[in-house]
Amino acid sequence: MSRVLTSQLAAYVGESVTLQGWVHNLRLLGGNLAFLMLRDRAGLVQCVLSGELVRPIPTESVVEVSGRVVTAPSGGVEVQAASVAVVSAAESPLPFELNKKDLKPGLETLLDHRVLSLRHPKVHAVFTVQSVLIGAFREYLAGQGFTQIFTPKIVATGTEGGSNLFGVDYFERKAYLAQSPQFYKQMMVGAGYERVFEIAPVFRAEEHNTSRHLNEYTSLDVEMGFIRSEEDLMDLETGLLQHMFSRVAEQCEAELALWGVLVPAFGEIPRIPMAEAQAIVDRKYGKISSGGDLDPEGERLICQYVGEGGRPAMVFVTRYPRDVRPMYAMPAPEDASLTASFDLLMNGLEVTTGGQRIHQATMLIESMRARGLNPESFASYLEVFRFGMPPHGGFAIGAERLTARLLGLSNVREATAFPRDRTRLAP
Amino acid sequence: MSRVLTSQLAAYVGESVTLQGWVHNLRLLGGNLAFLMLRDRAGLVQCVLSGELVRPIPTESVVEVSGRVVTAPSGGVEVQAASVAVVSAAESPLPFELNKKDLKPGLETLLDHRVLSLRHPKVHAVFTVQSVLIGAFREYLAGQGFTQIFTPKIVATGTEGGSNLFGVDYFERKAYLAQSPQFYKQMMVGAGYERVFEIAPVFRAEEHNTSRHLNEYTSLDVEMGFIRSEEDLMDLETGLLQHMFSRVAEQCEAELALWGVLVPAFGEIPRIPMAEAQAIVDRKYGKISSGGDLDPEGERLICQYVGEGGRPAMVFVTRYPRDVRPMYAMPAPEDASLTASFDLLMNGLEVTTGGQRIHQATMLIESMRARGLNPESFASYLEVFRFGMPPHGGFAIGAERLTARLLGLSNVREATAFPRDRTRLAP
Repeated sequence: MSRVLTSQLAAYVGESVTLQGWVHNLRLLGGNLAFLMLRDRAGLVQCVLSGELVRPIPTESVVEVSGRVVTAPSGGVEVQAASVAVVSAAESPLPFELNKKDLKPGLETLLDHRVLSLRHPKVHAVFTVQSVLIGAFREYLAGQGFTQIFTPKIVATGTEGGSNLFGVDYFERKAYLAQSPQFYKQMMVGAGYERVFEIAPVFRAEEHNTSRHLNEYTSLDVEMGFIRSEEDLMDLETGLLQHMFSRVAEQCEAELALWGVLVPAFGEIPRIPMAEAQAIVDRKYGKISSGGDLDPEGERLICQYVGEGGRPAMVFVTRYPRDVRPMYAMPAPEDASLTASFDLLMNGLEVTTGGQRIHQATMLIESMRARGLNPESFASYLEVFRFGMPPHGGFAIGAERLTARLLGLSNVREATAFPRDRTRLAP
Repeated sequence: MSRVLTSQLAAYVGESVTLQGWVHNLRLLGGNLAFLMLRDRAGLVQCVLSGELVRPIPTESVVEVSGRVVTAPSGGVEVQAASVAVVSAAESPLPFELNKKDLKPGLETLLDHRVLSLRHPKVHAVFTVQSVLIGAFREYLAGQGFTQIFTPKIVATGTEGGSNLFGVDYFERKAYLAQSPQFYKQMMVGAGYERVFEIAPVFRAEEHNTSRHLNEYTSLDVEMGFIRSEEDLMDLETGLLQHMFSRVAEQCEAELALWGVLVPAFGEIPRIPMAEAQAIVDRKYGKISSGGDLDPEGERLICQYVGEGGRPAMVFVTRYPRDVRPMYAMPAPEDASLTASFDLLMNGLEVTTGGQRIHQATMLIESMRARGLNPESFASYLEVFRFGMPPHGGFAIGAERLTARLLGLSNVREATAFPRDRTRLAP
């Protein structure tokens, strides 16, 4: 008899089936009766055990249960077990209880025993949602003529000239882990693909260990040629996020319900220049952000502002000053001290950085020099600018941050299966 | 006027359009006439320039051409240019000519100037095909209930206890780059996802520098729980490859034509135990493979054997001896000196390694000890086996090798946008 998933049982009422999964819970009642809650990748179902089938089985053991599907007194379905086989017995006790509505231990304990905490239905839901989000990212962009690219993670130089890089011993030489596929995605645009995306890990040797930072994360990178301005990029990202969110709403109803969240629905996402955003948080909340940027509290407040009246708390902040953006950021046409760039903030957190890039070789070399960078160190990047580079730009979405913001998770580690941070290298 | 792609022009005959792309070729004829071959991501089209529009423009410059679409004398379409603007002029001369049917320089020169060689239509086609292959990989597996996972590339220990690892300076500690997501994909199966896949870079510090090896490549990893045997995995991979190849056949007709290849069509892929494969290459070709494995020449010959009569040169070689497989390989039920494992060979090259894994904690610990490995070093991997692990297995496809075999490329670097090898770290 081939295996049936718990989610398929309603179609088998009156029939005999075989289920495989984990013992989520086992309640031994009196009178040779037991309720075994079986969990598989699709959900949970109660199996009723009686007679000689009743025996202690450690929670989280892998079992195979065969039996008849019947309508349960509650209205759903349950299985009247005819046989129960233990495929792989779990040790007991477990490090913590998994069959409660919420997990009790703190995040560090849950991460130490990640293979167990991931079995909890709410935690399980996080990475199901993430997989759907990323599938929809690919689906939308492929439909818009984008090519998926795979660029090297072992690199000779950083995109920004050296800070926050992890060193790698590459045979006789020193190499580094890529902080971003920035140069390579631009190069692939100029190499003729025009529209490219990459879904890949990036590595940041940042010392700070906050709820927003990971030292390795999944970057959803997009780069597009022949744009008219960065407005084209914000249009693209708006359509992309609409598609990603609607796929999650369609395919992850149960997962969203576990977290009690609704996916935001929006037509446009407001676009507010940085100077105006700073003025708003000052005027409305008395919060002064110094320099040309919003600090984390400023980011939270501008999201609160756009989210008033129940609107989605999402906003493109635009026109960042040049000195807080990288050397490849295109100056704004009306004011060369600003850039044609943007961040997308969602529910108080930056989830995207993007913008138009400089495509003129001479301007790019000048911009490098103005920051004390030596253009000769960037020769292989600069080659594409010397031989015909279209106007272009792009953005990068942090997959874990987006997942966390969508589900209301307070720490980005909760949206990472096996996070890497200042102190954590295991599991 | 918004941009039209070269591939869309047939729908615009008689209308005025704007094209954007690169100058593939410019032929200045007498009498104020010139033919400009414009190339965009979708293809090529001839633009006819006359009068004051005729001027020298360096090949590979980015241009915008507006004009009327007309039927060409050859039967296709061409554009009668009304305006030509140079958006980004290319330096001249180019390092090598791009507008020939085939590229002249050797592979190392083509890789040194990768942003240029990628512009050649045949080279461009390679990564279009790769993107379609990988999109179809995702599509098929998502349809079979698989979850896409993202596992760490910075790890504390290797999957095989230490060889071929690149070291990483991780703050105060020594870490390594993951050679494979093997442990993590198994852990995600046992963490309740049951069916998972990952598309991500892997890193191998192998000293040898051959046409088959890369030090960083894209691994298409699959792992599945609740299998009955490794036969389930070969069934899955057969259906998966059928889907991937048929998507390429549908979506990449022009790309396949450039390489003059047909995608192999197959129902089943033959499954031959290693001992029998060795006997076949000995009997048919007088080739002795020593040890329990086929060497590269043996792999070529067994593919030649199954490919006789025009059949696809694809074969699953099964039942590898335990001593040539990793410690987590499940012993064969009928002979514990063999394993329930397989390789897929295609057109003479291994493109997949897979098999059933040991899921019993005690057997796994024993297998580690038998190889001189200390189970304590694998504590976080072993945890999932202690708390209920289903029978499971999986496989990994090398994306570059598969692309290379499909298109008949002789060196796997040709199927890598920016390869990393023993000596190459740039671009």
